Amino acid sequence: MDIRARVVTLELAERFTIARGSTDTTEVVHVEIDHAGERGNGEAAPIERYDESAASALAFVERTELGDDPFSLEDLGERLAKRPGEQAAKAAIDAALHDLCGKLLGLPVWRLLGLRRAGPPTSWTIGLADPDAMAGKAAAAQGRFRRLKLKLGGGDGLDVERVRAVRSASKLPLQVDVNEWWSLEEALEALPQLAELGVQYCEQPLRAGDPDGPELRRRSPLPIYVDEDCHTLADLAACAERAHGVTIKLAKSGGMREAVRMAHAARALGLGVMLGCMLESGLGISAGCQVASLCDHVDLDGNLLLAHDPWPGVQLVDGVQLPPASPGLGVHPAPRVALD
Amino acid sequence: MDIRARVVTLELAERFTIARGSTDTTEVVHVEIDHAGERGNGEAAPIERYDESAASALAFVERTELGDDPFSLEDLGERLAKRPGEQAAKAAIDAALHDLCGKLLGLPVWRLLGLRRAGPPTSWTIGLADPDAMAGKAAAAQGRFRRLKLKLGGGDGLDVERVRAVRSASKLPLQVDVNEWWSLEEALEALPQLAELGVQYCEQPLRAGDPDGPELRRRSPLPIYVDEDCHTLADLAACAERAHGVTIKLAKSGGMREAVRMAHAARALGLGVMLGCMLESGLGISAGCQVASLCDHVDLDGNLLLAHDPWPGVQLVDGVQLPPASPGLGVHPAPRVALD
Repeated sequence: MDIRARVVTLELAERFTIARGSTDTTEVVHVEIDHAGERGNGEAAPIERYDESAASALAFVERTELGDDPFSLEDLGERLAKRPGEQAAKAAIDAALHDLCGKLLGLPVWRLLGLRRAGPPTSWTIGLADPDAMAGKAAAAQGRFRRLKLKLGGGDGLDVERVRAVRSASKLPLQVDVNEWWSLEEALEALPQLAELGVQYCEQPLRAGDPDGPELRRRSPLPIYVDEDCHTLADLAACAERAHGVTIKLAKSGGMREAVRMAHAARALGLGVMLGCMLESGLGISAGCQVASLCDHVDLDGNLLLAHDPWPGVQLVDGVQLPPASPGLGVHPAPRVALD
Repeated sequence: MDIRARVVTLELAERFTIARGSTDTTEVVHVEIDHAGERGNGEAAPIERYDESAASALAFVERTELGDDPFSLEDLGERLAKRPGEQAAKAAIDAALHDLCGKLLGLPVWRLLGLRRAGPPTSWTIGLADPDAMAGKAAAAQGRFRRLKLKLGGGDGLDVERVRAVRSASKLPLQVDVNEWWSLEEALEALPQLAELGVQYCEQPLRAGDPDGPELRRRSPLPIYVDEDCHTLADLAACAERAHGVTIKLAKSGGMREAVRMAHAARALGLGVMLGCMLESGLGISAGCQVASLCDHVDLDGNLLLAHDPWPGVQLVDGVQLPPASPGLGVHPAPRVALD
């Protein structure tokens, strides 16, 4: 198999803000694997929080040799897993291999994996902003989406106010993501109020590894999901001590194959499962969509936050991000648009 | 898809004895699923311990409608799982569907699942008998097998003597299976002696659900594996309280798909994984072989205990039960031998 990669800059439709910072663009790495006349594609969305960058992901892919059997997924995955870090790059290779296998067999990846095509409705992410601005975005999402995910962690004492403002502007189910920005005391003050406002669950209120995690799990009136605490299968048992559910992302797990393993192990541990994403094109989002049906909640809106999606094919149908029915990941590069 | 089934009697090479009883023959159910010009085959080995019989498995299969998509494995599996009991029949349907999908795609099932072809060496099972007789069988296994599994639970105070006799007749790694026949006190007396004799692990010393399980786990000098305690993914968290490893069998899990889920969840729980079998033909054993590479230990010798295997194809190579490299499960019915 021949493998190559390049860095691609994705432009957001508007500035995106979470507790850790703001951005107008994001860099991803596109991976191509050629074999037996077919090409598999995958996308890496490196996570700065874990010291990954487009440059480090690119370097990882460029040091990768895959051998000659795209179906030896367990073997290839184990070899990649032995190399430290660069989970996003691993996920791109995993996605490209699955895309390739699906194309070689003429099957969409979700069928190759024996899964259903449709998962649960995606949430629509509302970035961190003033309460009124967030309420305005929530109102605008009505009709197109069936769940809202609010980024919290403003550090200004207004987080509950944000949820209250959105609640008054929208009847959609609400989820909140604090991105590690609260202390135990802040969480215990905010969560009962969020429960009264009908929030479904709270994602990563405390810092990853915070020793107060198990206590918050016991005392929280809302289910706690952990994201920054949960990367691969090896983290799941500890997550069960500090949370009611886990947020799986392909960019953390290293790809679909590990994500599937994690979803099953989470069931055995009694954990809920959410599938999240990064700011990604439809190429990355399609990989998530292939395994979304194994999850209770999904947040797969990364491509919808872009100014334009360079890899169209995933369809938003009644709030569900539906993967294509064509072989592999089923997405293809958009024709380049002439700039006038 | 068209599905049909029939009862088949398998004749053993010699009488087989475990703690619960003896047998000279065993009844299995063979399932055929036809679709798009291909036929998938699978075998059910019903377990009397769980109130299953060939007749009850046959009746279960005869009440099954599968629809038109053999690749919708998750969906079909969930529908089967909702019907109570008859795990062996479910495993036969799961195997026949995988065989069919592999044939439709031209891929062996292990490749379709992205797995390696070879798992660990199979153990060779020595049925419960007098110490000298067991030692004789152990000596005869030399050269052909790389591990021995001794059936214990004689109820005659001679179990340690059995292991000592075998140990003096063979240098192969030893595993023991008590099939629920010891009390906590008997286990705590026997296990230190078995540890001194170099036994690797002890399978199901106590009755399933025995409240002494967690205490034995704490005090045992040998790893405890549970079999009768462990059926499906839902049992794994409780098994982690009472054992160091689990014995997965397709006839308990309801098939390969659940077995794969269980193997991954076991890793997340820090449990060792053994894959066992029943008295089965090569058709049933091939299904186990497809997923054996996910396991630490395998006992897939069921077809080797038969007078003749009606579904040849699995090869014993250097102690490993190797699945065929041909599409699906890769085994085919042997020509009927004329009786003279």
